[in-house]
Amino acid sequence: MWLFSAPPLARIEQAHGVRLDAAWLEHLQRSSVRFSSGGSGAFVSSDGLVLTNHHVGADSIHKLGDASHDLLAEGFSAASRDDERKCHDLELNVLVSMEDVTARVQAAVAAEMAADEAFAARRAVMAEIEKESLAATGLRSDVVTLWQGGAYHLYRAKKYTDVRLVFAPEQQIAFFGGDADNFEFPRYNLDICLFRVYEDGRPVKADHHLAWAARPVAAGDVVFVSGHPGHTDRDATVAELVSLRDRRLPLDLQILNRLETVIGGYAGRGPEERRQAVQDLRGVENGRKARSGVLGGLLDPAVLAAKRETETQVRRDLEARLAGKESPFVRIERAQQTLDGIAMRYRLLEAAAGFNSEYFRTARTILRSVEERAKPSGDRLREYRESNRESLEYQLFSDEPLYDAFETTKLADSLTFLATSLGGDDELVVKVLGGMSPAERAATLVAGTELGRRAAPSSRPDRRRELYDGGPAAVSASSDPMLAVARLVDGESRRLRSIAEAADEEKKQAHAEIVRSRFAREGLAMPPDATFTLRLAYGVVTGGTQSGTPYPAVTTFGGLFARAADKRETPPFDLPPRWREAQATLATDTAFLDTGFNFASTADIIGGNSGSPVVNAAGEIVGVIFDGNIDSLVLDVAYDDRRARAVAVDAAGIVAALKQVYAADTLLEELLTGDAPRR
Amino acid sequence: MWLFSAPPLARIEQAHGVRLDAAWLEHLQRSSVRFSSGGSGAFVSSDGLVLTNHHVGADSIHKLGDASHDLLAEGFSAASRDDERKCHDLELNVLVSMEDVTARVQAAVAAEMAADEAFAARRAVMAEIEKESLAATGLRSDVVTLWQGGAYHLYRAKKYTDVRLVFAPEQQIAFFGGDADNFEFPRYNLDICLFRVYEDGRPVKADHHLAWAARPVAAGDVVFVSGHPGHTDRDATVAELVSLRDRRLPLDLQILNRLETVIGGYAGRGPEERRQAVQDLRGVENGRKARSGVLGGLLDPAVLAAKRETETQVRRDLEARLAGKESPFVRIERAQQTLDGIAMRYRLLEAAAGFNSEYFRTARTILRSVEERAKPSGDRLREYRESNRESLEYQLFSDEPLYDAFETTKLADSLTFLATSLGGDDELVVKVLGGMSPAERAATLVAGTELGRRAAPSSRPDRRRELYDGGPAAVSASSDPMLAVARLVDGESRRLRSIAEAADEEKKQAHAEIVRSRFAREGLAMPPDATFTLRLAYGVVTGGTQSGTPYPAVTTFGGLFARAADKRETPPFDLPPRWREAQATLATDTAFLDTGFNFASTADIIGGNSGSPVVNAAGEIVGVIFDGNIDSLVLDVAYDDRRARAVAVDAAGIVAALKQVYAADTLLEELLTGDAPRR
Repeated sequence: MWLFSAPPLARIEQAHGVRLDAAWLEHLQRSSVRFSSGGSGAFVSSDGLVLTNHHVGADSIHKLGDASHDLLAEGFSAASRDDERKCHDLELNVLVSMEDVTARVQAAVAAEMAADEAFAARRAVMAEIEKESLAATGLRSDVVTLWQGGAYHLYRAKKYTDVRLVFAPEQQIAFFGGDADNFEFPRYNLDICLFRVYEDGRPVKADHHLAWAARPVAAGDVVFVSGHPGHTDRDATVAELVSLRDRRLPLDLQILNRLETVIGGYAGRGPEERRQAVQDLRGVENGRKARSGVLGGLLDPAVLAAKRETETQVRRDLEARLAGKESPFVRIERAQQTLDGIAMRYRLLEAAAGFNSEYFRTARTILRSVEERAKPSGDRLREYRESNRESLEYQLFSDEPLYDAFETTKLADSLTFLATSLGGDDELVVKVLGGMSPAERAATLVAGTELGRRAAPSSRPDRRRELYDGGPAAVSASSDPMLAVARLVDGESRRLRSIAEAADEEKKQAHAEIVRSRFAREGLAMPPDATFTLRLAYGVVTGGTQSGTPYPAVTTFGGLFARAADKRETPPFDLPPRWREAQATLATDTAFLDTGFNFASTADIIGGNSGSPVVNAAGEIVGVIFDGNIDSLVLDVAYDDRRARAVAVDAAGIVAALKQVYAADTLLEELLTGDAPRR
Repeated sequence: MWLFSAPPLARIEQAHGVRLDAAWLEHLQRSSVRFSSGGSGAFVSSDGLVLTNHHVGADSIHKLGDASHDLLAEGFSAASRDDERKCHDLELNVLVSMEDVTARVQAAVAAEMAADEAFAARRAVMAEIEKESLAATGLRSDVVTLWQGGAYHLYRAKKYTDVRLVFAPEQQIAFFGGDADNFEFPRYNLDICLFRVYEDGRPVKADHHLAWAARPVAAGDVVFVSGHPGHTDRDATVAELVSLRDRRLPLDLQILNRLETVIGGYAGRGPEERRQAVQDLRGVENGRKARSGVLGGLLDPAVLAAKRETETQVRRDLEARLAGKESPFVRIERAQQTLDGIAMRYRLLEAAAGFNSEYFRTARTILRSVEERAKPSGDRLREYRESNRESLEYQLFSDEPLYDAFETTKLADSLTFLATSLGGDDELVVKVLGGMSPAERAATLVAGTELGRRAAPSSRPDRRRELYDGGPAAVSASSDPMLAVARLVDGESRRLRSIAEAADEEKKQAHAEIVRSRFAREGLAMPPDATFTLRLAYGVVTGGTQSGTPYPAVTTFGGLFARAADKRETPPFDLPPRWREAQATLATDTAFLDTGFNFASTADIIGGNSGSPVVNAAGEIVGVIFDGNIDSLVLDVAYDDRRARAVAVDAAGIVAALKQVYAADTLLEELLTGDAPRR
């Protein structure tokens, strides 16, 4: 997970004999795309075609559907440019430049400042840098915190918000094997979809796009991955990891388990309810399995023992040179205790786990927007800073249709969680419930709010824009019940946020000290933890062994059909009708059956890398990352290339499927030539 | 939920004009059957045929299946007596007599005893009474604690352990609508199955059995329910209810939610895994929905306000007469705090939520059996008392086949729960995990233990009998790894149990005082809380209103087909093949389509009543209880006949289904005449 601004060129050359240059890197960087919904992708034609995972695009695909069009289940293929469907709230970013602004950020924070003052000063200087950059370049500008506070870089990106769906296979083949096969290998998934980026109503002319590899990957090939790993905890101290193991992850899992049963229960009510909820359900299942894997790693005594050993050395060195000053490790531990002490209330209120409804999130955003707008950008809660305003409004005014029965179900469950976590007689709980049971209260709130676009025809208007534009006067005059609830908890919620921000600042300063000490000893030897910014990974295409059984590096279409048969095509191992037909017609086509479908490699990836292009040494696309195996989940806390594998859709498999299953000849021509066919 | 020894005859006559006599009651009592697996049923022929719910029999039906025979999914119909299939570990009881032994039990407990001494003395006298009764009558003898300790009754029951499966429909029609429709009405479920009880290799000649009603039920009919409601908390104090609301139920739900995702995840791995796990999954889903309902009731401020009001009055009266003695309400609150303080550790260790595997339960039972056997029966942990020995051994040596992959999955998850709940560095956790991650440790334990019958051929022998019979010497010489884990936690586990038993004793004494005060004022006005012993309930067949929509008292087969169509036959709303055929052939048979399938009544029931016969004033079967509606779940804490409904399979629907869908003519003749046909 190397920074594009500090790629390990010598290491790569030494290990794999491949020499990369600046032009190669810039081409890959400028072809890479970040999805605001939490994933990666790449331009694959000069006409703005973007390739990513089906599960990265699924949220947008879902929102384009309705009760009579289940685009997730049925798939989608635009018959022409006019048929390409604009997404409701998808934003894509392409990283244009990076700049080290550490000195300016650190200079704004004086040594004698208290943690909350230091936090405010740091937030202010970051907002100032971002605002200046936006004004100067027109580019989306974000100051990114690296090495837990060891460095600050300014990332500038081109932003696209007119993104249209071009092609998606049926979810059944994109996610063949479902939750059971998720984070496993061998796999057989066509986990791809294609969008096209528009500007001013026309397909964007991408300066850079990746060419399709002529030769498929094979075991032993070196491959490179360019994408946006979301979050890792490799530089966390042992105290932070113990908190993660004993507190944070168990709480995450408690919340995810209950969401899975509640959303699963709603989906079980019938086919239309399933369509409404399936996308949320997939997300929850995926999060549950990922966190279980990280937790399993942290509960392996060997993993934490290794961390303890390394830390003991670093700490001894560092503390020997402190000359009576308090150890940064002790400061991190204390800040972590502060965070742990408020974790449950923070999660319920500020992270809104007690108010799980789109309507509530909208109510809070409107309430806070009008309050924050009155302040200088640098003093605002960070997500309301001026440079983020366009993106925030784009999300806030999403055309996503909301389903009241689903919103009520989620809200009732989360109000129950709020009540049982704080106690049924807690003052705030009593106020929030207003004399009703959680189920009654949720039904009343959802039925009464006017802060969203309802899927079904409704007599309730959508007052989002009116309140947001109306400012404080309009908001305080509003009698919207969801806005009232957001207001009711906002004081306590902001108070918790301030405590958390000050504790995070404490940790940041302490981490910066540890990192400076490490830099002095090792130089820039290891990349920073993942931050959902562009990174370069590399590895070798290779098989492995799972529970004593060896598996190959590359799976095939023949393998897909065999697995479906072995599972008697019982869901989630059933094939979509189109694929059953293909199976029959191509039963003896050994070239097709032997074509690579998915492959594994040792590249270092994590959630957020989904949809990342996998390229060969020539920089040509050979696949698209869509998953890691179960042993890769520990990569969150520790690097491992023995058992961890990144899992990708094979570019050769994409070509074969588009040609022989979907007969998508025009699209295929654009992919293979990098140009849209003239028509 | 009235005691058969104190039926409310005058109330019934006054309210419904029906006069019941002792013979009527005895006939119903002696026809009623308790299922050890947690349900009710009734003899319906003189040849030992027992009718119950499919979901009550499902555990036994499941255990009779294997990878090539999915009896739950496919259903079962014995072609002849020889074809009836003996269950692995099902015990049925028929209540023969009841005797009030309160005076003797209370006399054994002296006023000056500490709680733990009092507990031991009470346990000893109960075991003594049971042992004497068993010796004198040969009947299963249990001293039952009523009114939370206000009274003690000796229940004697005939015990049957040769129980054979005769008929079961497909689970898809028994549980049509699945978790979505569970605890809802209208319903359309053939939730029945039939067993036959054998003694000495021949069908038992039942002295009593219920006759089939000639006339179907209709709205307005008075009906009676004889069954075994499992547990209610209506006499709990407000302090106990608050603990239930804020601690016990949230913990239950946390555990159930994680079990649902873990077992659901295992079931999703393929059709065979689904077959292995589906029964456990149903149980967990049902428990989750039931507890959510109770919690919803307790979180309704109106419910607890009413409880508070009643308690305030009772408490004022009682405390005025205490003359300086500590209030029993205060003692209950303190004991509840003690229980709350150890609740998590108790649940993990003594209730074994940290060791969720049949292998562990067997290991503990063997370990404790050989230790407890050395003590006098009255000094043993209660489940090891001499009078329970036969039943305990019957369970311990069950022929149930175990699936190692499934046991490993459950154990790995529960070890993770243990570790995260106590903390990964907790001394006991470190010992239990033995240097491995929970997943590795679970795999090692399951692979290494020899305490069960494996489904797959295995080189591991089954040493349950050898160790149990071998006594302390054999058990301490054994190197079975699961036995070692059971041994490792047993000291702490027993310590927690002692604390809990003493606190429960405290509560019992305090409740007895409250009850005596209530008896003095009201007499035996209200029945005791449910205790999984035989009770009589009654009510009226009637419809109601759900979320503003009225529903009828009785649903029909026509309604079933309409609902399946409305849900596009998507699971869980799909029909088994046999029912699809019936739908086609009977499409114009209005007599069939209009036949009653399920019905609702105001009878006061709760979990454990499943399978209870519903009879008319003449004592003839008109239905079989199988569920309550969502508003009935609050019956756990407060009686309500406005919105709560008991839901039953209509006897007329059973006849129509057996005749027109299953062509089960011989079985039908036995049901309708009460005699097995001569052949």
